[in-house]
Formats: sequence, structure tokens, C-alpha cells
Amino acid sequence: MHLSHDLSLEPRAETLTDPVEAFVRERVLGRELRLDDRPKAPSRQYQEFVERGLDNWWVPKAQGGRGLSLSESVDIVDALAYGDAGLALSLFIAVIGSTVIDLYGSEAHKRRCLGALARGGVTSATLGSERLAGSELLRMATAARREGDEWVLDGEKYFSTNAGIADHWLVIARDVARDELRGFVVEDPLTRPGVEVLRRWPMIGVRSSATYELRLRGCRVPADAALEGNGVRLLEIGLNPSRTLIAACALGIARRIRDLCLDYAQDKRVKGEALIDNAVFAAKLGQVQMDIDTMRCVCKAAARDFDALRGRSDAAAVFMAAGSLASTVTAKVVCGQIGWRVASVGSEMFGGLGYTEDSLIGKLVRDMRYVSVVEGGEDVLRDYVYNRSVLPADMRRRALEGRGGAR
Amino acid sequence: MHLSHDLSLEPRAETLTDPVEAFVRERVLGRELRLDDRPKAPSRQYQEFVERGLDNWWVPKAQGGRGLSLSESVDIVDALAYGDAGLALSLFIAVIGSTVIDLYGSEAHKRRCLGALARGGVTSATLGSERLAGSELLRMATAARREGDEWVLDGEKYFSTNAGIADHWLVIARDVARDELRGFVVEDPLTRPGVEVLRRWPMIGVRSSATYELRLRGCRVPADAALEGNGVRLLEIGLNPSRTLIAACALGIARRIRDLCLDYAQDKRVKGEALIDNAVFAAKLGQVQMDIDTMRCVCKAAARDFDALRGRSDAAAVFMAAGSLASTVTAKVVCGQIGWRVASVGSEMFGGLGYTEDSLIGKLVRDMRYVSVVEGGEDVLRDYVYNRSVLPADMRRRALEGRGGAR
Amino acid sequence: MHLSHDLSLEPRAETLTDPVEAFVRERVLGRELRLDDRPKAPSRQYQEFVERGLDNWWVPKAQGGRGLSLSESVDIVDALAYGDAGLALSLFIAVIGSTVIDLYGSEAHKRRCLGALARGGVTSATLGSERLAGSELLRMATAARREGDEWVLDGEKYFSTNAGIADHWLVIARDVARDELRGFVVEDPLTRPGVEVLRRWPMIGVRSSATYELRLRGCRVPADAALEGNGVRLLEIGLNPSRTLIAACALGIARRIRDLCLDYAQDKRVKGEALIDNAVFAAKLGQVQMDIDTMRCVCKAAARDFDALRGRSDAAAVFMAAGSLASTVTAKVVCGQIGWRVASVGSEMFGGLGYTEDSLIGKLVRDMRYVSVVEGGEDVLRDYVYNRSVLPADMRRRALEGRGGAR
Amino acid sequence: MHLSHDLSLEPRAETLTDPVEAFVRERVLGRELRLDDRPKAPSRQYQEFVERGLDNWWVPKAQGGRGLSLSESVDIVDALAYGDAGLALSLFIAVIGSTVIDLYGSEAHKRRCLGALARGGVTSATLGSERLAGSELLRMATAARREGDEWVLDGEKYFSTNAGIADHWLVIARDVARDELRGFVVEDPLTRPGVEVLRRWPMIGVRSSATYELRLRGCRVPADAALEGNGVRLLEIGLNPSRTLIAACALGIARRIRDLCLDYAQDKRVKGEALIDNAVFAAKLGQVQMDIDTMRCVCKAAARDFDALRGRSDAAAVFMAAGSLASTVTAKVVCGQIGWRVASVGSEMFGGLGYTEDSLIGKLVRDMRYVSVVEGGEDVLRDYVYNRSVLPADMRRRALEGRGGAR
Repeated sequence: MHLSHDLSLEPRAETLTDPVEAFVRERVLGRELRLDDRPKAPSRQYQEFVERGLDNWWVPKAQGGRGLSLSESVDIVDALAYGDAGLALSLFIAVIGSTVIDLYGSEAHKRRCLGALARGGVTSATLGSERLAGSELLRMATAARREGDEWVLDGEKYFSTNAGIADHWLVIARDVARDELRGFVVEDPLTRPGVEVLRRWPMIGVRSSATYELRLRGCRVPADAALEGNGVRLLEIGLNPSRTLIAACALGIARRIRDLCLDYAQDKRVKGEALIDNAVFAAKLGQVQMDIDTMRCVCKAAARDFDALRGRSDAAAVFMAAGSLASTVTAKVVCGQIGWRVASVGSEMFGGLGYTEDSLIGKLVRDMRYVSVVEGGEDVLRDYVYNRSVLPADMRRRALEGRGGAR
Repeated sequence: MHLSHDLSLEPRAETLTDPVEAFVRERVLGRELRLDDRPKAPSRQYQEFVERGLDNWWVPKAQGGRGLSLSESVDIVDALAYGDAGLALSLFIAVIGSTVIDLYGSEAHKRRCLGALARGGVTSATLGSERLAGSELLRMATAARREGDEWVLDGEKYFSTNAGIADHWLVIARDVARDELRGFVVEDPLTRPGVEVLRRWPMIGVRSSATYELRLRGCRVPADAALEGNGVRLLEIGLNPSRTLIAACALGIARRIRDLCLDYAQDKRVKGEALIDNAVFAAKLGQVQMDIDTMRCVCKAAARDFDALRGRSDAAAVFMAAGSLASTVTAKVVCGQIGWRVASVGSEMFGGLGYTEDSLIGKLVRDMRYVSVVEGGEDVLRDYVYNRSVLPADMRRRALEGRGGAR
Repeated sequence: MHLSHDLSLEPRAETLTDPVEAFVRERVLGRELRLDDRPKAPSRQYQEFVERGLDNWWVPKAQGGRGLSLSESVDIVDALAYGDAGLALSLFIAVIGSTVIDLYGSEAHKRRCLGALARGGVTSATLGSERLAGSELLRMATAARREGDEWVLDGEKYFSTNAGIADHWLVIARDVARDELRGFVVEDPLTRPGVEVLRRWPMIGVRSSATYELRLRGCRVPADAALEGNGVRLLEIGLNPSRTLIAACALGIARRIRDLCLDYAQDKRVKGEALIDNAVFAAKLGQVQMDIDTMRCVCKAAARDFDALRGRSDAAAVFMAAGSLASTVTAKVVCGQIGWRVASVGSEMFGGLGYTEDSLIGKLVRDMRYVSVVEGGEDVLRDYVYNRSVLPADMRRRALEGRGGAR
Repeated sequence: MHLSHDLSLEPRAETLTDPVEAFVRERVLGRELRLDDRPKAPSRQYQEFVERGLDNWWVPKAQGGRGLSLSESVDIVDALAYGDAGLALSLFIAVIGSTVIDLYGSEAHKRRCLGALARGGVTSATLGSERLAGSELLRMATAARREGDEWVLDGEKYFSTNAGIADHWLVIARDVARDELRGFVVEDPLTRPGVEVLRRWPMIGVRSSATYELRLRGCRVPADAALEGNGVRLLEIGLNPSRTLIAACALGIARRIRDLCLDYAQDKRVKGEALIDNAVFAAKLGQVQMDIDTMRCVCKAAARDFDALRGRSDAAAVFMAAGSLASTVTAKVVCGQIGWRVASVGSEMFGGLGYTEDSLIGKLVRDMRYVSVVEGGEDVLRDYVYNRSVLPADMRRRALEGRGGAR
């Protein structure tokens, strides 16, 4: 088994990619099926990553972190997802909340929450989706009521990765006084009265990650837990790095599928020759390689966009105006589409054996499916891109009005 | 939940489709996830189908069976696979062996083996594939040696559905004297010395069916167990109905996905309207419906081809000349391709919930994948169709020679 | 060059397919580029087809015609389109009007109009579409006003194939008294005052056919020119055979592309071997062959549906209830989609030479595009199939109301 | 009509993009059909571009040129191809020869040839392909024989854009003494004895460009016309910028198709609403926008790769080792594939009118097809990428040997 070398001329991030690739080689490859078996969270591999001091690599230097860029994070997540996409997901998903807190949180939030992430060994979670508010965030019903010096949170949250093991949460809830969605930083949530972890979802893929359903009943947080700014917009801003890194998962899984095919083809014989010498196989893998390089291009372009804005002194204002960047949305959708094509090609290649649990390909197909499903389905995001990037500026308002305010 | 009505004008087979649909409605719908949980073989639903006297419906009337045509079988399997494709598979896979025995077996074979199938409650299995001979059948190494009045069989067989529960087997093995692959009818295999069931494969889909790996070590069968005719050719002939019915599984699964989407869309709201009223959803389901109708067309066309030859008095000779019909190969490949497209569309539709085991869609995607993988992958079958139906007749020989005779 | 043999077991219509194939071989092959050069209508090949007494083959025996079925017509049009799709189109398009007149016309209409078609040498045209009413037929504005014993027709019609050379027209116009669209039989239109042929459209494909834009200004026709029944419904009924035969054009063009590729591959050398022996080429052509067989299946299934209804004694009532059959709509859409895929594969295969007018492939791609565009685009027809075949019966009404009466 | 604004955050090259966009707006938009009518070469628009002093923008500053990077050239060609891809092609194709001359030519070649390009008003052409050597360059038969102080060139060249109007040529020919393909700089070719322009090819798209077939018969050039280095390798190096810019043509054409659809949708009404407000239309255009952004990403990534190598002091040696970069090959293939998908979607959208020459869409589809066909078909390039980027290094040699060295 080998981590095959991509002949891209663009240098890969050296800062952390090497130790991460080493970690994957040493601790993940060969253990994928155990990771697929829905291990207790956090998984042993997650803990080993932490023990090597590699986690939360993107937390800003100002908070004591490594401050790696999103562009570098693409390489790191690509390397992790080559081993196991669920592991990659659990290790980067805190980027949503930490991006929001870093841009819009108080100094105290940054110090406590980001500081803890920077020291390592903890993670954070974002509680956005609800049963009736998947892609329609405006329908969120979780309520935040001000009582004296505190906010009281009530509601149920549907899908939240790492919520059951997190050090702090970013909760999107409706400030009933303002009738507006806002963001709330909930520290130490798992020890807080009124917080109930209803269940860990039985996911069909990325099974080494843990996603939870939760209930808040009279959960009290201090007055300063509320962030300024529209909560949906905060979420959109946080999804920029997250969607980019989900796209990078597709890249890593696709590279793994390619190498799995290649390993198989070195032994398999077809028509008296090694499959690796077969022209139809070569055509498929040549296309897969171009697909992989295309995925990397769109991930990197999205990351550069984000990093460019993030580096500006007025980043908070610019992101508040921009919300979800078209390029990060595009990265997730396009990598989901290309990745599914790669997975479809791969899943046909191994014959009967590939249809058994002796083979890794079934897991890779299930993991790949996640990319298209999570953080906005294709229909929602196509519509978003149409309204945002295709319609002439003067028609955009009309379209938004005509559609009842739903993005 | 409803078995939605297809507005095709072609009448469906009335002979058995109604009781089968009733069976699916009463005994299968709602139990899919249990069937997906790899139940002991044969499954409870399989046994209930038998108890209703519905099994082995295609066995010829001359042997005491119902003698339903392949065209009628398409409707039956479509209806079964709407409920559970693994169940459908376990119930029709005996058609391979029974077709071969009916065309090329002795009267005694027909009386005993087909008679047993006709009486119901038993099934048969075909032992073709080997570890090194998946799509390259000529590489089969299982040996048959004549010793006195008996054949002695030695070798390992890789994937054989129902082998662990079958009343009799059709084994493809090399007659070492002739150095030619032949077919052998092995009666009561599970009580026979030298027969070992190595394991039931842990399949990633069609999990209510059971597929086995087996070993034959000095397994003795009577002299008349050997069928005349090339063993690969016999297998190709038997695969005609089987591939057609695998294609019909794709049809049933696709109908199920359509109805699952429709059920979901009646409750789900998007942009202030029911999803069922959403134009993008309508476009997707309109396409899915046309895809379903296309699948039915190719299944039925293949079945009509087979039934027409099967009804001829010289059917044995004609099939020996024809082998695998282009239309049955096409049905399997095309339904596998269209079915995968339908599954891909469906698997994106349900958002996060569709990515959990609370939803049926994940199982349907895994079941659908089987169609493209089993009984010849797309590459092998495309090549077969090219050589058989595209190349001018005078070039076909050359191509076959040039490729070492491997189909 | 050869008409390669399709190894389908379904017998092709012998009644007329042989002479039509002979005609194509003798009079069309080798003249395609001249036919592509927008020859004066009717083209020389059209006239030669007439001279052989082959035209209007579907006109019922009761009216003196050959009475060939739609299923037989699929083979005939397939054979013609193998030579030139524009020629095929000009030769079958009269089937729209003649189907409507045969089902709903007076005895006098049948005797005169169908009788003339049966005697041969003339054709008919249907004037449906208008500039603002392409796929939305209800927006048609051409008016029919009753004045004494006559109807007076006023309006402009956009696309009508053969209108400039037709013996009679079926015109869809709004009976202003009833405020309902109806059908009108206009005999000898080209000599009638108030009829103006505005122009022959400069089409980008099917260029040996002629499609016209027309103006009616105070055009008077007798009282009995009006047919009973809703005009849009009449048109939908007439489109059943026409859409099926457009689908059959895709089939013929696809077979031609396959053979063009095959001819090319016999000479072309790649990597030291003939392209015809190249595995990637084999994979492509094997898929194309399966695509071709799929197209034939859906065309034949649609034709059988139509023929079955057409043969009933209550055909007029049944069709009035049914309108456009789902299977004929599906045939056109699916063959358009598959055909475009075949054309896309073919158009890449010939390298630089295929990008010049020395090659036939450019014409075949342009001709193929017609199938998806004419008589309802994919979006319109997907929506139609959704409403008609997917939605549960009780929801269909709601959907139709909710969408403002558009089909 | 508007040049719609792409909401990419990556700044576009300001150096020349603005005047080029102004040129397209003022001199190209609205004249596309005339440009499609195969105007005399060079076209009026080509001459106007020259008159504005914009041509040959990439010629190095050292030779008196503007020295714009390939990354900047992507934006320029994108803007030109938005207007007319044939015009774009004629304006950038000299980049092949000028890149080779700049890297491997003598100082005299650079001074004369590149100096002339820098001064503007002239172009160059590359004579590579031959009738029997399209994608198999090693089969080239044009011979170069040394006679005294001169080389004598004999042979026929198949497709060469701008050869009939060029100031100098780069000719790939076989040095018969060495039995090796080499590159030869032929200055003032059109006035040189032994040079014959056989014909301008009747192309089916990019018709405002001119591509020629040529014959060399005893054409004499000075001894120093021969460049060092393998001729196929020189060609591969020159194709790097050319393939990237062909990919950029797909980007420009795709943007044009998007805007054509958008213009159409503002007027067209469907189901009682403007098409621009239709959800299915929005989904299509949202996807098209993401496709466009993906195309730009891969073009830019290829250009950055090239520019990075080009900027190195050892660029000549590095390119001689690298040949065709995987990223420039990928850009051409992927943009050809995505572009064809965009063209296919677009060409269905305009109904009957889109199938006439009154509409621009037919031309845009034909122009788009060029991208996949020229400078290596997909099969050849997939195989190239497989051998180069997928196979492990130790297997690459074997694969190349096993395939007779033909790339």
C-alpha cells in the first residue's frame, strides 16, 4: 500500500502535512474497517492525533494556536481523509465555531474557547440544524429568552457533530425579543443543567465520527454568551472553511480509491495481462487522476478566497457582508459530484469481492456520499449560487422577495 | 406507503403478480431493515413465500411446475425487489441451474431435480466462479476426474448464492481427461462427503440472500452427473434468465426509490411549499419515471427474446449456438447503469436523515450496486457485446483469436 | 460501407423495411452532404422515394393505404434516418395530421385527405406552434371566427414542417366564440387566399427537410373544416406517432454513427494496432451498441402501446381520454438523451478530420440534436410525465390547478 | 447583452483584460454570425485587434513584448472567446512556436521572430500533425535532409492554424541522418520556394480562424534553422500554454452560453412566470455557474504551474525534462468535458428557435466541440495522464516499453 505521489507542481503545505501523513500511515492505514465500526467517540485514532499534538491546527496564533491557513488545512484534511474521512471530519469540524468566535466573539470567548482548542485535546460543536429546519435555516425554533443576567435556551437540535464530546458549543437560536436568529456560545455544555444528549445518530458512513441529537430545556447561559450579528449569517460564515474541508475529504477519499484500484490492478489479471496494463483500466484511472486534480484546484481556490478575506483587517465586516462565499459552496458541490463519479467507477471495479466487507471500497463509497449530503444539498446550493452569482444584481432582490425570503 | 401504479399500457402478468404483490405488501414492507440485517438463511420471508406455494414459479409444467415465462418472471421479480432485492435474488437464482438441467439434463435429472423444485420448498445453486476466475471463466481450476463409475470433484468455488441451503448444485469443473470445462449435477450436496461450506460471505447489500464460499475435496458423484456440452457455454445459457431477472431487481429497487421520494415529498416543505409541488423535484421524479419505464422495456425485450427461443422445439441446439443473448446482457448492464443513476439521485434527496440508518435509502443504494457487479461487470460485458454484435462477422474470429479466446 | 446487422432476435418488419433499406443504400448513402446543403423542398431523394411508391406507408387500408403499424414504421424510419434524418422527417411528419383526421375527421375528410396521401406524392402539415406558444400551447392566439358557412382564420404560425409543400393542413386555432382551441382541416392551403408562406427556416440540422413560418390573414375554410374535440388534445394525440418516429430517427442516426466509427476504426491505427482491435474503442462501441438496443426497445414499446389502442374499436374515445401516452413521450426524451450521448462519443472519435466538413459526423451531431428539441423539450416533458405518471391520482388535480392549468 | 460579473474573489488580470473586454464589446458582440461565416483570413476583427496594439501579448519583455504571464493570458483568452472562440484561437496560437523559440531558439531567432511578434501585426504557426500522425506524433514522415549549409524539407502537413498567414513557422520533421524528430524554424515561409498551401480546411466551428493543409517540396532553410532537442518534446512543451488557452476558450464560450440563456430567460415566459424565476432554470444555471468557476480554477492552476517553471532560470532544462505538464493536459480535457456539458444544456434551452441559424447557440456548440478535439483527444490524453501521474514510477518505464514507446 502506498500514498501515491501526485505530480502537481503546486507545493503541498510542509508545515503539518508531513507529520499528518506519517500519522495516517502509522496509525490509520489498515485500521479503516475498525474505524468504520462506529467506535466510541472520540476514537482511539482521534486520541492518538491529539497525543501527537496535531489537533486544532488552524486556531490563530494570537490565541496560542498554530494559525495554519485554510489552504494548508486542505492538504491536512486531504491526507487525513485518505486514511479515514470520519476521522478527518471529527478533527476539523470545530473550525465552524472557532471561525465565528474568532471573528465575532468577545475577547473572553476567544481567550477561553480558542485558548482551550489551541492547548489541544478538546473540540467544539455547532448546533444549527433542527428537525424541521435542515436546509431552511429560517425555520429554526430553538428559543433564547432573556431572564435577568442570563439567556434561557429551549429547543431540540438535530445533527451536530462532536456535540456529545465538545468543550463548548455555538448554538443558533431565536432571540424571541428581537425575533431574530442569533448565535450563542455555550461553554462546558455537557455539565450544564438542561442539556440532554438524546442520541448518537447511526450514520451510514463517516462512522468514526459522532453526530448527535440534543435537547435544551431551560439551559441557562450568561448574558455575554450572545454574539452580535444575524445567526444564520454567522453560520454561513463558519461554513466557509467547513465546506471547503468537506470538499477536501472528497479529495482524500478519491485518492484512496485510486490507490485501492491501483493495488488491485497490480495483481489482477485480465485477458492474459495484468489489469494495470489494460487500456480500459488506464483510461478510467487517467480520468480519475484528472478528476482528483480538478477537485484539488477547486478546494485550493476556495481556500485562497477565504484566506484572502480572513487576512484583511476588516475581515469581520467583509464576511458579515459576504456570508457564504460562492467558491466554498462550489468546492463542496463540485467535489461531491466528481467524488461520487470516482466512487461509482471504483465500486464497479472489484467484482464480487468488492461487494463484500472484505473490501474497503464499500466503506469509501458510503463515506463519499456524505460530501454531497452534508451542509446543504446540491439543490439548495445550486439555487444559492444562481441567486448570488448568476442573476444580475438588480434582479437578485426581486428573486429573493418572490421566494418569500428563503435564501 | 403505496405500491404506486405505473401507467404502462402493457398488461402485467396476472398469473402470479397479484399474489406476489400481496405477499410483499403483507410480509415484506416495513421489515426491510431486518432483512438487511443478514438474517439466517433462508430468511423468514423466504419461508413465508414458500408456504404460500409461490416459489420456483418458472419450473416447466412438464416437471410439475407452473411454467411461467421469463416475461412473467420479470414482473414477479420486479414486485419482489420492490420489497427486498435480496429476497428476490434468493427466490430466482435457481433459474440458472434449472434452465440448464431442463435443456441439457437427463430425464432422471429433470424428474428428480426439477420435480423437487416444482413441489416447492427447495432451491438449487450454481457453482461457477473461483478466486482466480471471476470474469475469466476459462481459468477455472476445479477438477473432475473419472474413477470407475464416478466423477471425483476437487476445487474451491468462490461466490455461490444459496449453495449452503440448496437441494442440488450445478458445478462447472474441468474434465481433466478432455481438458474441457463441463457441467456436473450434484444432488444432495450438503450431505455428501467431501463438500465443505467454507463461509457465508459478508455482503454489503442484498443481505437477506446468502452467498457462500465452498470447497470440494474428493467429492464423488455418479457417472451420469456430467452434462454434455461445454461448461462455460452451459453457464452462459443459464445466465440468460438470471441476468434478465437481476435487471428486473434494478427495476423494482428503482420503483421503491421513486415511491420513497414521493412519500418524503408529501411531508417535506421547501420554500413554503410541499416538496411534491416543487418544480425541481418534479423534474427529477419525471426523469426517474422515464428511467423506470426504460428499464422495464429492456427487461421485457430480453425476456421476450429468451422466451421465443425457449419455446422452440430445437431450443437446446439454438441456445448451444447462441450462448448469452445480447439482449439479456444489455438488460443487465443498462438497468445497472440507469438504476445507479436513480439511486444516486435518490440518495441525495433525504438530507441528513437519509444518511442515517433510520432511512431505507442507504440500503436501496447498496442493493442497487449489486446489479452492476454480479454476473459480469460492465467492462467484460461491453467487450462481449462489441465482439458479438458490433464487429462485422468476418472480424469476430480474428478478435477472439487475438484475445486468446477469452471472452 | 455497410448497414451492420443488429443481432436482435426480434424480427424486423419485412413489409417495407427491405425496399426502404434498398432505397437508402442505392439513393441516399453517399449523398448525405448534399442533403445537408438545404436542397429545394421536396428534395430529389424525397421524390425518388415517392416514385418508388413507398411514401405515406401508414395510411389505413380503409383509405386505400398500406396500413402499416407504428411498430413497423419504427423500422422504416430507423432505416431512413440511417441515411438522412431530415429525409425521414419529411416523409413521416404527415402522420400527425393523418392520425387526427383518421380518428376525428369526417368521412369526407378521410376520403379526400387520406385518400390523397394513400395515392402518394402528396403530404400534409400541422400548424401548431406560435412565436409565444412553443411548449405552452394554451397561449396560441390564431383565431377562428365563424362567418356564415365559413370559418375565417387569422394568425401566425411559427414552425411547421412541410407546410410549404403540403396538400392539406391541420391548423390549431382558437374558436373565439367558444374560447377554446380546436382543430381545422385546411385543404389545398397553398392556393387559398389569405395564406402566406413567410419563410423557410434556416435550420441547423435535418436540413433536407423544410420547416416554414406562415401567416393566415382572413383565410376562409368551409364550416365542416372544424373538428370536434379540444385542439390541444387533438395535437397531443397526433404527436404520439410523431414523437415515436422522432425517437426512431435517433435510433437510425445512432446506428449510422456506430458504423461510421467502425469504418474509421478499420483503417485507423493506434499504438501499432488497428483501432478496431483497441480495447478502449471496443468499450465505447460496446456501450453504443447497448444504447442502440435500448433505444429500439423504448421505440418499439411506445409503438406497441399506440398500436394496441389504435386497434381498438373505441380508439377515438380512448385517445381523447389519454392524450399523449407516457410511453411515446418517454421514447422521445430517452432516445434524445441516449442519442446525444452517442453523438458526443462519436464526435470526439475522428480527431481533427472529424471537425471538418469532409466528415459526416458533424452533420450527424446536428441532426441528433433535433430529437431533444422538437415536439416538446425535456423540461416540459419531464414535468408532463411527473404529473401524469408519478403523482398519485388524487394529487394530480391539485398540481394541475396549482400550476394555472398548464398541462 | 451584458458581460455578466463573476463573483470570484480572485482578481482578474488588469493589465490587458479591460481593453480586451472593451474590444470584444465594441467590435465582436453582434458580429458573431459573420465571424462564423468563414471570413477571409485574417478576419476584420483580427485586424482591428492588431490595430489596437493588443496582439501577441505574451511575447517576453526581453524581446520587446508585453511579457504577460499565462495566468493573465487565461483572462484575455476567456474574454476573447466570450466574443468568438475562432478569433481567440487565431490570436493566441502563435504561443506554441514562440514558447519553443524563446526557450530553445538562437538569439537570432528570438530577435527576428519574437521581435516581429512583439512589434505586432504578424503571427506564427506550428506544423506538427500529418495525415497518418494525428495523435501518434512518432509516425511523422516529413523529412529534413542536410545539404551543405542548408536543410531540405519534404513532406505534407495536415492541420496548421494560421500557417497560410504566418510570418514564420515551427516545423517538426525527421532529421533523416539522426532518425530523430526535430524542430525547424522556417522564416518567411509563404515566399519560400517549395512551400505550397494546399487548402484551408472547411472547419465546422471556430470558423473565423484559418487552418491549413500544406506541402513542403524541397523547401530549403539555413543550417541554423534546426533547434536542438527532440522535436516531439519541443512540441509537447509548446502545447503547454496552447492547451491551457484552448481550455480558456471553453471557459469563455461557457460564460457566453450562460449569458445567452439568461438573456433569453428574461423575456421567455413559462407557466405564467418569467423563465428567470423558474426553479428548474435556476438549478441549471446554478450548476453552469459552478461549472464555469471550476473551469477557471483548472485553467488558472495550469497557468500557475507553467508560469512557475517558466520563471525559473533553468526553465529550458526543466521543461525538456517535463514535456507536457499534467496540469495543462488536465485543463484541456476537463474544460472540454465540462464545456460540452454546458453546451449540451444550453443547446436544449431555446426550443425550436435555438435550432435555427437565427440563434447563436448552434455556433457556440460547434465552437465548444473544438476544445475536446484539438491538440490531443481525450483517449490519448487520459492514457498520457495514467502513464505519467498514476502509475508508480517503477512501472512507468515498463508501460512505455510495453506500448512501443508511443505516448
